[in-house]
Amino acid sequence: MATPSVYLAGPDVFLPDPRAKAAAMQAICRKHGLLGRFPLDADLDLAGLRKNEQGLAICRANERLIRECDGVLANLTPFRGPSADVGTAFEVGFARALGKRIVGYTEVDAKYRERVIAHFGKTSMRRRDDGVLQDPAGMSVEDFDLVDNLMLDGAVIQSGGAVIRPADVGEPGVSVFEWAVRTLARLLEQGVRHGKR
Amino acid sequence: MATPSVYLAGPDVFLPDPRAKAAAMQAICRKHGLLGRFPLDADLDLAGLRKNEQGLAICRANERLIRECDGVLANLTPFRGPSADVGTAFEVGFARALGKRIVGYTEVDAKYRERVIAHFGKTSMRRRDDGVLQDPAGMSVEDFDLVDNLMLDGAVIQSGGAVIRPADVGEPGVSVFEWAVRTLARLLEQGVRHGKR
Repeated sequence: MATPSVYLAGPDVFLPDPRAKAAAMQAICRKHGLLGRFPLDADLDLAGLRKNEQGLAICRANERLIRECDGVLANLTPFRGPSADVGTAFEVGFARALGKRIVGYTEVDAKYRERVIAHFGKTSMRRRDDGVLQDPAGMSVEDFDLVDNLMLDGAVIQSGGAVIRPADVGEPGVSVFEWAVRTLARLLEQGVRHGKR
Repeated sequence: MATPSVYLAGPDVFLPDPRAKAAAMQAICRKHGLLGRFPLDADLDLAGLRKNEQGLAICRANERLIRECDGVLANLTPFRGPSADVGTAFEVGFARALGKRIVGYTEVDAKYRERVIAHFGKTSMRRRDDGVLQDPAGMSVEDFDLVDNLMLDGAVIQSGGAVIRPADVGEPGVSVFEWAVRTLARLLEQGVRHGKR
């Protein structure tokens, strides 16, 4: 049986040394029998392309990588605000429509509602007459006891996966990323046993 | 020929009166020969469900709505940070994987890089030795002359669509939303002529 491959979605591509992070994540994937594919793996030749054409070429390469993978590990740690990185959210949606198995993970335990309140500050929030909580712009705050927007949690859970927070890690000394890898590895193995791949 | 239907993705569902906004958007869609479908249209019975089960049920209904539609109009106006709403980003990814036509729009002219700098404040930004701009967390800032994360712009453009900013509206008195509707209506009409639907 071929080694299942998983796409490593997340804002890790924006780290000062994304390739070092990718290598570390790929080593953990290997340990659990998975081939980790990182967005920068495509190694595109962007020379001579205008800025926006470079962006479109990277987009095409990432879409292709996701199509080729059996599953997606999505880093949903809040990025530049109370929610996940939008590029990662896009990729979760893309993978979900293709029926891929998805496991999300985040370095933050607080759920979405709590994070929005912390982001704006408790005293900046308002409550409508019907009890709905609103941010300072008057936009209501989701109240579904989920880690992020319901489309993200919903798609991950309904793909058979889970969104792993630090509090969910069931073994001391194991990182939330490694716990997510183990969860996805088991999920993909079950898929094989049930003939779902 | 059946009226093409388009899914109205965006953080408009969080407005104080989302149904009023939906009705206004749907009227503009009708004017241009499109049937606008709003996330809340499914009118789910959520009574008796736990909070997280409600979220998952709404997620399933929205995924179904997107599958049923011919195209997606995505409100990419920044939401609780410098980027678009992650639920909308998810839906753009979902639609893209299904090969739907997508047109994005935003109420803000500034592109992503400029918005990130404004979000953190110019003096909080750092520049690496190789010239790459970093936010205060040390995360590099995309430099692709695009409206948001390259996956969003890339997918919209490569679906045949465009991301419409106020500056792109070619007729006085027309809203950015209506311009986006017109753009998508033409795109879907061309798809029919070319037998692509």
